[in-house]
This record gives sequence, structure tokens and C-alpha cells, in this order.
Amino acid sequence: MRAYRDGHVRDEDDPVIVEEPLELRDVHGAPVLLTMRTPGADRELLTGWLHAEGLLSAAPDLAPHPDNPNVWVVRTPLPPHAARLHGSTSACGVCGSGSVERLTQHLTPPLWARPPVSPVLLSALPARLRAQQPLFAATGGAHAAGLFTPGGALLAAFEDVGRHNATDKVLGWAYARGRLPLHDTVLVTSSRAGFEIVQKAVRAGVPVVVTVGAPTSLAVDTAQVAGVTLCGFARAGRLNVYTHAQRVASG
Amino acid sequence: MRAYRDGHVRDEDDPVIVEEPLELRDVHGAPVLLTMRTPGADRELLTGWLHAEGLLSAAPDLAPHPDNPNVWVVRTPLPPHAARLHGSTSACGVCGSGSVERLTQHLTPPLWARPPVSPVLLSALPARLRAQQPLFAATGGAHAAGLFTPGGALLAAFEDVGRHNATDKVLGWAYARGRLPLHDTVLVTSSRAGFEIVQKAVRAGVPVVVTVGAPTSLAVDTAQVAGVTLCGFARAGRLNVYTHAQRVASG
Repeated sequence: MRAYRDGHVRDEDDPVIVEEPLELRDVHGAPVLLTMRTPGADRELLTGWLHAEGLLSAAPDLAPHPDNPNVWVVRTPLPPHAARLHGSTSACGVCGSGSVERLTQHLTPPLWARPPVSPVLLSALPARLRAQQPLFAATGGAHAAGLFTPGGALLAAFEDVGRHNATDKVLGWAYARGRLPLHDTVLVTSSRAGFEIVQKAVRAGVPVVVTVGAPTSLAVDTAQVAGVTLCGFARAGRLNVYTHAQRVASG
Repeated sequence: MRAYRDGHVRDEDDPVIVEEPLELRDVHGAPVLLTMRTPGADRELLTGWLHAEGLLSAAPDLAPHPDNPNVWVVRTPLPPHAARLHGSTSACGVCGSGSVERLTQHLTPPLWARPPVSPVLLSALPARLRAQQPLFAATGGAHAAGLFTPGGALLAAFEDVGRHNATDKVLGWAYARGRLPLHDTVLVTSSRAGFEIVQKAVRAGVPVVVTVGAPTSLAVDTAQVAGVTLCGFARAGRLNVYTHAQRVASG
């Protein structure tokens, strides 16, 4: 890499975030998912994705392909529509509001049985997550997702080149440990809050989502309908709460 | 939206970036693409995506669905594999290097017939693009892509909730005007440089890509093989050049 710095030029070695394709196939060899991801925690990623898409009724039987580390096989039978997903997301239908209703139809609303949480604590979580982001520190190109207790203790954190993958990894980690629904937890992501992040939180029963970046309209609408407290632009002492602000203390 | 600011709380109206699904169907009604996007420039987005996926041999016949503004129909016959894409990307096979070879196989390398471009000029382009980002200014949640001349003049810029969509829009704009291959141009994106951004640049014949964020390993590999000058972390006076640095002047 050649670095230009205010008139000076030098050649440097600079690590970049690893991006490789990951394919999941069913027992018949049909592709179910094709995504670009950072290798590592593939099992958690695939478990989280399968659960977020509503394809699991029990823990999946997953195994890496013997010949290719970028291919995994799921031996658990999947619903027939799974083969049509293939890298897309099932819940985002063409009518946003319709899909929001479908998404929330058979789910219990996320539960926060605790007193309202301090906004100062919530606003501090992205910095705590960043302390768990060695790939971001090295490359500047990694997103992260972390799961926290109401007191702000970190339960798990994962990094990935894709923000949705980082979220799948952390929620897949929780699913595999029998921790779903994730009542009384806070999901923190280093990214913006798009529809997919909220969709995954809803599926996992997470009541509070905190993001560093901006939310989208569909993310706000989904969080509103699904009962998720959605926070954006979180940084030390500053926080925007877009939905269900009753779970956040007033000072 | 409830804003917490260093101990103060107030309720504010805060615009968020619009995110809605967009579906493209072929003449038989089969879905070809399902993506989340910011409405606006749908025609450019779909044209750019179809071209980037290698599905076009001539300008596509595209029309919005009469009953749903989030559905478009492409009446031009598409290759048979198009129906299998459905929101995924065709070029990212499971073997990254194999797909890079396939991607570049039938393409003429991007051409830069000009003298090396000033790194100071390249590093200034993201700020020029930002001046064309009203959605980002209002919401903080929009990505942008812009196409520039070697002298730094803006040809076109588009915003979208998705970085790949913004790129599709600007390259679709150019395709529809018969401007491809885009020799002697610079593509600037407000995002990181992932594989997909470079893939789209290669398909459109863009020789120089400048991004504000970090590149990924597969983006660097693809740019190297395809003959694209890939620059990252661009900000006033500072620029990293990861591949084909011969097109960038040394001071």
C-alpha cells in the first residue's frame, strides 16, 4: 500500500479486513445462503442467520465441507422455501409494513423486566464494544456486534466485514447456548440500524438495540411495531432513542 | 425521537433515511432482485445492477408496476440464470480467486490514458461528493457514490441507504447514457471498499476507485487482477493506494 500524507509518500504494509464468500448448502446440495464474510465463527454466523430467517425449530446440524472451508452443509431438514432465500432475506417482502406484521406475528414481544436503563450507560456501550474489536483496530474495515447485560457487562462480541454477519454471529452464539429469547439484554452494533439489524433482534427477542450510526425509516417502523427500544448515534453521554423510550431513564 | 445530551433530555423531530424494499421481476413475474433501497432513481439503480451482474446486452426495457411503486418489471429477456440471483450477486462464487478470474475474463481492462492524477486531487473528491449529499446531511444515514472526471469535475452523484445501491445508481446513469466503458473516470464512494464495489467498477470499466473507508482483502485482490487503482481512507491530503499506484502522481 502506498500512503500519501500531506505531500509525503511512503510504502507501508497495512492489514486489510479479510472478506471471503461463505456458502451454506442443504443436504441435497442446494445453496441456501451465499454471503461475503470474514472467516471465523462460521458456525455462529450460520446458526444466527438460520434462526433470524425463521428456518429453525431446533439447533441445526451444521458441518464444514471437507474440501472447502468456505462451504458448510446443514443436515437438519429446512422448510421448503429455504432454497429460495439464497443470500436474500425472507422477511423483507415488497410491502415493508406487511413484512413487519409477518415478522412480529408469531413472536412474543421482547421483554425488559428491569427498571429503565441509564442513557449514560447505554451511550457508553459502543466504546466498551470497541475494546473488543481487534480487527477494527488493525484494519478500520470491520463491524462488530456485542450482547450486554442490563448492567453493561459484555456477554459476547464478534467482528465481521458485514454488519449483518456480526449480528448473526452474536445472536447465533446465544441461540446455540439456549439463551433465546434474549430478554433483558442490549444488542450493540458498530453500524447503522437498518431493517435487517432490527429484524434479527426481534427474532431473538432482544428488547434494546443500540447502534453507533443512524437508523433507517424501516428500522424505526419495525422497532415500533415489534416493541424494541431502538437507539442510534450513541457516543459517550449522547444517545437518540427512536422507539419505546419508556425503557430508558430520563437522566 | 428522544435526544439525551450530557444529562439533558428533549424530544425532537429528526428525519431518518428512507429504506424500502425494491423488487425487480422478469416478464414471467419471477423475482430477479430484491433489495432494500432508498426510493428515487430506481431506473438507474436497476439498470446499473443488471449491467453489473452481466445480464444486459443492450439497454433494458424497464417499467414500474402500475400498482406498486416498489416493484419494477424488466421486459427485456434475461439470461436463464438471472432468476437464480434474487438479491445475491452472481460474481461472488465460493472460490474468491476463481470468481475474480471469471469477472475479468471477458472484459477489456480499465483504461487511464491520462497522466498520473494528483493524490491531493483524489483525496479532495470525498469532500466534493459530500457537497452533493443532502440526504446524508439531513439523516446521517445515507451512502453516496459519484463519478468524476480526471480533473475532478463531478459528472453525477446519487445517494442511497445501501452503498452498493448508490454505486449501481451512478453506474446505471452512465450506462443509460451510452458512456460505458467509463475510461478516464474516477468513482468515489462514501463507504468502505468491499468486493461488490470493485466488481461493479470493473464491469463498468472504471480505472480509479476512491473510497472514504477501508478496503477488504477481496476488494484489493480483485482490483489488482482487474487493473483498477483502488484508493481508501481518502480525506484532505491523505490517501492510501492499494493497487496500480502508477496512475497516481508521487506528490
